[in-house]
Amino acid sequence: RSSPLLDAYEDFSAMRAGDLKMRIEEMVRIKSTVSVELRELESRRQKLQSDISQYNQKIEELKQELLREQTELERLKISVEQAQVAQREAVQRNTPDLALPRSLLPNTLPRKSNPITGGMAASCEMHNCFNHSRCSLTSGFPVYLYDPDEHSVQRKGYDIDGFLKTTLKQTLGYNAHIVKDPKHACIYLVLVGEALLEQDLLRNNRYAAQEAEHQQPSTPTLENDCPVDMEKLYSLPYWGGDGRNHVLLNLARRDLTSHRTNPLYRQNTMRAIVVQSAFEREQFRPGYDLIVPPILGPPGGDVWQECAEMVPARRKYLLTYQGELRPKQSSLNPLDAFILEHLADMAKGATQDQFVLQFQCVPATEQQEGDSLPDWTLCGSDSSRRQLLKDSTFSLILPPLNGRVSSTLMLARIYEALRSGAVPVILGADELRLPYAETVDWRRTALLLPKARITELHFLLRAVQDADLLLLRRQGRLIWERYLSSVQATVDTVIASLRDRLGIPPRPVPSVIAQSVFNSTFIPLKSDPPVGLDTEPEESLGPIEPPYPSPAFRRNYTILRMQAKEAWNDWLDPFYLYPQLPFDPALPSEAKFMGSHTGFRPIGKGLGGAGKEFGESLGGNYPREQFTIVMLTYEREQVLMDSLGRLYGLPYLHKVVVVWNSPKPPLDDLRWPDIGVPVAVLRAPRNSLNNRFLPFDVIETEAVLSVDDDAHLRHDEILFGFRVWREHRDRVVGFPGRYHAWDLGNPNGQWHYNSNYSCELSMVLTGAAFVHKYYLYLYTYHLPQAIRDKVDEYMNCEDIAMNFLVSHITRKPPVKVTSRWTFRCPGCPVSLSEDDTHFQERHKCINFFSRVFGYTPLLNTQYRADSILFKTRIPHDKQKCFKYI
Amino acid sequence: RSSPLLDAYEDFSAMRAGDLKMRIEEMVRIKSTVSVELRELESRRQKLQSDISQYNQKIEELKQELLREQTELERLKISVEQAQVAQREAVQRNTPDLALPRSLLPNTLPRKSNPITGGMAASCEMHNCFNHSRCSLTSGFPVYLYDPDEHSVQRKGYDIDGFLKTTLKQTLGYNAHIVKDPKHACIYLVLVGEALLEQDLLRNNRYAAQEAEHQQPSTPTLENDCPVDMEKLYSLPYWGGDGRNHVLLNLARRDLTSHRTNPLYRQNTMRAIVVQSAFEREQFRPGYDLIVPPILGPPGGDVWQECAEMVPARRKYLLTYQGELRPKQSSLNPLDAFILEHLADMAKGATQDQFVLQFQCVPATEQQEGDSLPDWTLCGSDSSRRQLLKDSTFSLILPPLNGRVSSTLMLARIYEALRSGAVPVILGADELRLPYAETVDWRRTALLLPKARITELHFLLRAVQDADLLLLRRQGRLIWERYLSSVQATVDTVIASLRDRLGIPPRPVPSVIAQSVFNSTFIPLKSDPPVGLDTEPEESLGPIEPPYPSPAFRRNYTILRMQAKEAWNDWLDPFYLYPQLPFDPALPSEAKFMGSHTGFRPIGKGLGGAGKEFGESLGGNYPREQFTIVMLTYEREQVLMDSLGRLYGLPYLHKVVVVWNSPKPPLDDLRWPDIGVPVAVLRAPRNSLNNRFLPFDVIETEAVLSVDDDAHLRHDEILFGFRVWREHRDRVVGFPGRYHAWDLGNPNGQWHYNSNYSCELSMVLTGAAFVHKYYLYLYTYHLPQAIRDKVDEYMNCEDIAMNFLVSHITRKPPVKVTSRWTFRCPGCPVSLSEDDTHFQERHKCINFFSRVFGYTPLLNTQYRADSILFKTRIPHDKQKCFKYI
Repeated sequence: RSSPLLDAYEDFSAMRAGDLKMRIEEMVRIKSTVSVELRELESRRQKLQSDISQYNQKIEELKQELLREQTELERLKISVEQAQVAQREAVQRNTPDLALPRSLLPNTLPRKSNPITGGMAASCEMHNCFNHSRCSLTSGFPVYLYDPDEHSVQRKGYDIDGFLKTTLKQTLGYNAHIVKDPKHACIYLVLVGEALLEQDLLRNNRYAAQEAEHQQPSTPTLENDCPVDMEKLYSLPYWGGDGRNHVLLNLARRDLTSHRTNPLYRQNTMRAIVVQSAFEREQFRPGYDLIVPPILGPPGGDVWQECAEMVPARRKYLLTYQGELRPKQSSLNPLDAFILEHLADMAKGATQDQFVLQFQCVPATEQQEGDSLPDWTLCGSDSSRRQLLKDSTFSLILPPLNGRVSSTLMLARIYEALRSGAVPVILGADELRLPYAETVDWRRTALLLPKARITELHFLLRAVQDADLLLLRRQGRLIWERYLSSVQATVDTVIASLRDRLGIPPRPVPSVIAQSVFNSTFIPLKSDPPVGLDTEPEESLGPIEPPYPSPAFRRNYTILRMQAKEAWNDWLDPFYLYPQLPFDPALPSEAKFMGSHTGFRPIGKGLGGAGKEFGESLGGNYPREQFTIVMLTYEREQVLMDSLGRLYGLPYLHKVVVVWNSPKPPLDDLRWPDIGVPVAVLRAPRNSLNNRFLPFDVIETEAVLSVDDDAHLRHDEILFGFRVWREHRDRVVGFPGRYHAWDLGNPNGQWHYNSNYSCELSMVLTGAAFVHKYYLYLYTYHLPQAIRDKVDEYMNCEDIAMNFLVSHITRKPPVKVTSRWTFRCPGCPVSLSEDDTHFQERHKCINFFSRVFGYTPLLNTQYRADSILFKTRIPHDKQKCFKYI
Repeated sequence: RSSPLLDAYEDFSAMRAGDLKMRIEEMVRIKSTVSVELRELESRRQKLQSDISQYNQKIEELKQELLREQTELERLKISVEQAQVAQREAVQRNTPDLALPRSLLPNTLPRKSNPITGGMAASCEMHNCFNHSRCSLTSGFPVYLYDPDEHSVQRKGYDIDGFLKTTLKQTLGYNAHIVKDPKHACIYLVLVGEALLEQDLLRNNRYAAQEAEHQQPSTPTLENDCPVDMEKLYSLPYWGGDGRNHVLLNLARRDLTSHRTNPLYRQNTMRAIVVQSAFEREQFRPGYDLIVPPILGPPGGDVWQECAEMVPARRKYLLTYQGELRPKQSSLNPLDAFILEHLADMAKGATQDQFVLQFQCVPATEQQEGDSLPDWTLCGSDSSRRQLLKDSTFSLILPPLNGRVSSTLMLARIYEALRSGAVPVILGADELRLPYAETVDWRRTALLLPKARITELHFLLRAVQDADLLLLRRQGRLIWERYLSSVQATVDTVIASLRDRLGIPPRPVPSVIAQSVFNSTFIPLKSDPPVGLDTEPEESLGPIEPPYPSPAFRRNYTILRMQAKEAWNDWLDPFYLYPQLPFDPALPSEAKFMGSHTGFRPIGKGLGGAGKEFGESLGGNYPREQFTIVMLTYEREQVLMDSLGRLYGLPYLHKVVVVWNSPKPPLDDLRWPDIGVPVAVLRAPRNSLNNRFLPFDVIETEAVLSVDDDAHLRHDEILFGFRVWREHRDRVVGFPGRYHAWDLGNPNGQWHYNSNYSCELSMVLTGAAFVHKYYLYLYTYHLPQAIRDKVDEYMNCEDIAMNFLVSHITRKPPVKVTSRWTFRCPGCPVSLSEDDTHFQERHKCINFFSRVFGYTPLLNTQYRADSILFKTRIPHDKQKCFKYI
């Protein structure tokens, strides 16, 4: 209003001075009025502004609340819907779920039958000589051992090495199939060898040996020196007349050369199965008898120290052989003579390849040879041979003479080659029978050649590329470790081979029995569910369902029937039945709509989609499931309570397992947040990081989210990680990525642990990662003890060990999800991982673990997983998969 | 300057009017001066501003250029470095690369040896009866066929079915091993059967049959009715006295029951290998003779129409059997009688499971049985049996009587069961020998049970879960399709089995010979390399290297030695040698620093890293490599030229292959951009989308980036895709994600193709995706013809077919990379994919392809791959992996 007025007074030049004064006064008056008016206006404006902002704030609050309520409602709706589906499924279900098999056992001793002749025995196969009725599919394969001290079957003058007797009993004691009651047994084990002359046994004992030397040894003649007294065998209490279901164990250890390694040759063993190293061609009954290598290793325990490193692929010598034909008078047939000649030429030939091919022992090896069977003996000592094999890319194996299908010496040679990573080249393999040939795939670990290929041998060895060479060597080492290395390995493998042949599932793997830190009467105090969590985005991530443990033991009778090859040669664990495997097959995508609906929750009921539809259902290729959170904690109670509280309302969470690593139990007045799912607080056997991976019986899901007690992950991140894990059930799937870097400065080659930002990763830390429960079993039972010991020594590296294990089994890198790089909660005390010692230890761990595994199993990956529509520009009416990730 | 002066004049109220006037005048004067001054200032300011902005622009331009130059320099440096490494490697390399094997062939006919006795023949194994010297590892396994029309080995009154003779010759003609010159051959095939009585042969011909009926058939007596004339056999021109390396093919087809199915029983076949269906126990020589099922299918070609759908897992009947014991007078032993009794009880038992177990044919089947061997005959007709098997979850197989190890009827039963997806349950499998048992893993496709397990049968069948059932059924179908379904399949499998036994690699897979659209003298015009590409971000994505084709045929002599099980049972292709496989193994991560450096380009030389270090090297688990871009084009020359131009400077690009689908060759005056790598423009056989996947010989890398001619991908996107593909060499890795949705409205169950934004995908379109060259071979040679025909019919769906194929082989979903969802260039004409017909066709394709495969192989995935530091907040001094992705 005042502006136009003032404008009118502005043209001073055109006015008289008198007017001017008056006008100026008027102007001054106007000015003051205007000032007052302005001040009033200003104050009203401020008032209004503050009102508006208050209203806005209120509206915003209301909106938020509405959104929360709507989300909650949405969630409830989904949950109700899911519960209805689950209920329908429960009603419809016809096929009963399989559970852990119950044993159905025979309850009688074998009845007496008539003895059979040697001729009949020679044509024994499982269907005509074995009594299946003692071994039902659900029996669990009970095995009885005749105590070798009570039931000796040796002739006078012979006895079994005390070591063998003791360790056999001991190691069988660890085998889950052993039963004490012969009435229940499916098979009966008899230790028939190796039986040594008592004078030879004495040689072990230095003083006794000196004494024995003075006596004239009464060498038995060839006729009467069978160490086994067949009559004693026939009168074993459960022999039943014909030795049905009896297994004669003749395990070689000290005597690899004499004809006593095959004492049962030309004896009538009736229906008994013979398990030994040496077999004559007409003696061996395929699919019935079992060839096992001699037991040259320790009773059990870690064996990795025995082995050589796998890398470099190519060693000093391309091919080596050291051996001598004994007894001296043995003569070669023309083909074998040609082979030796050709090999000698090859070694001398003009080539860059180096060979050691010695067919005479230098220095000469002292050896009794009076009663040896014609064969290639080993030269030198165990350690001299080990030295050469360690430097050999390939190790030549020549078959025994006279057409035998297997000899103890040959198997000892294979054993030593595999142990040192020299790939066996078995010449004449087509004339031989290899150990455990029904189950172990020898083509993956040795080159098997007919003798006729001798002239092509060098060519063939040169044609093997590094990657294949390392594959052969790795497989050889695995076979050696699991099936040949120790008495335990041999005994377990013999039993598993027979069990496999009968199609009976193995015994279930034992879980670790969880013990609560609370005593049975104590009820821990609860706090109210936490409210207004900042961590929870306002989106519906999935239904809140009743607990749904993963179905277990559904493949009891199929897995080792259909996937025996994998179990024996890829997973290398035919010894146990696992509740589930990360390799279990998926159904074709239409099956979930046609006949196999149960458990499937397709996105949008099959129509697919994003946003709401995606959040509502798990989709994917596997049926619905939940996951367990395992949290290791040590004396940080408030941090733990906060972490637990943040899990409130997390969909698909089945249970939280808190491993209480402190010896002090939680305080009685500690208030545990009520988060809607059970929280099992378990007493740890002792303060060890290995406890993080104990396969507790209370973990009832396949998916295990391993998190540190101070981990700070949002619900959407956890659920996306869970979905990705469901596609990669065999891998570590999680958030913090790390890698192993090669230390260029170190001439010997060393790995460094590295936690920098990097575009290539090889580990995902288990402070925030999903792993399959199967790997908890493997970590606890299969990993060499040395690794768990190192974890305890450093109180560090358990996460590295888990990454090694999983990459070792799968030969795949882990999967990193989302952009999250750290997971520590902002306010938490600085953790261990920051200081330098911690890093130094982790460098050492990588290098030590690599030595134990014989190579570094970690593999590289250059990408991470994000949700499909992350950072994608989409039309406004479309929804993303998650709001923030 | 003027402001303080003006201020002094402002206090009007304190002045007199006279002064005021003067002062006002002065003010007016000042005002005008100031105005002028202001105007001047303003104009100067504007001048300066424009100058500054010009300078800024120039500086910016210079900066840009500098950056470009630096990047270029960086790139050159890397390239030089890489070239140096490659050169060093070339110098250091000691092991020669393997190439496609050259054949080393014998050049003589078999020499004459002395015949051997039947007794010696009975103990034939490869090492004592086979002459390896005709079959060197590099021979390529040459096979000679005695023309059955010229070299009949039948007795008078017998002849071989004309169909068999003709199709055998025909199908062998397609086999790469066949040679015409007997001097080169490793093995000699003799068609000995099935030989039928000439009067039976006539029955085929209706008129001749009527005539024959009137004659009294002169049924030969059992003694003289061996259809094979051994003397004729012995006098075959290359028999060499003892039949070394001869293979006697006795293929059953029309006569499944008579004892003439095994005409060589008790004949002295000397050193010849016998290939047939029926074997007596003492007749079969394991590892020497070969069991093949009867040839019941067509000569060759597509067989999928014969099969039943795989889903649903559970069919109407749990277990079925229809058969009758012939001849009638045959009697069962007590165990077999008990089995029949038990089965009858089972069918009647109180259970929800349905059985059809008939041990009498109803209606009775007319059958000659005078000369039948005791066995279980088939009831009804092929189509009635097919009807029942289609409704059977499991099909019972009973072994032949009298302890035979294999019978033609039993194999026919297995053949029919596998064809219809009824999982065979082979009772007494431990007494039998199964076809191709050396190579085919029957445990994965049938339940093998000893007879003693009969009482546990029902329990076991119920214990098989849906997923395992479908696995068994799928494997059975694959085995059937690849090895049993047709004459071609049988012939190829017999030859591959013998080849495998000898350890000789298969013949290399044939490539498609590329033919340029330009005639040999024409040199296409070139345009300058395009400048200032907007698509190229200013970052160094990798070195520009000289061309480096992927090493080929490096595993010639190892792959089928070590991975025979996979080749026969997983890849189902033991017939060809491929230059590389997507399943080739990776080395352990330390090998590239210890002894196996060649080709590896670790990030930061092993230290890892991001940004520059990452850009410089490929890293990962595989050695360096390059990729080929294959572009299908049809009459859009400018679009194509633009697309080609954008590839200038793309690191790791080996070659561009343009498949010119138009019948009109390119215009002579068309200018092709010079992009630094060869551009091969290939004439297409005809306008077909299948040409996109022809395995041209000019594609020399494992990685193939298939792109549409209008695809618009940035270099960083391509290179990230390439890196991810290097981790998933067996999968389709690319940009545009699609999925198959279940049509809920359709009661019969139908798939819909869906290209909406979705959080779950199952296809990645090959308009912009990496695939392994291996899949080009499979697409072109292995995919049923019906699928390629459908692609031609619709001019659509080739990308869906490729996704089906890859998921079928791997049982894995594809991998989607980065947030890019479409790839069309902005200005390009709207493509086909927009209109509705296109979508309708794609729906139909998915459903049709599913019928051909027998199931829908597509699987779901819920994540995509981004670079590891994408959208990650990192410190300012750190670099990301890529600038924009």
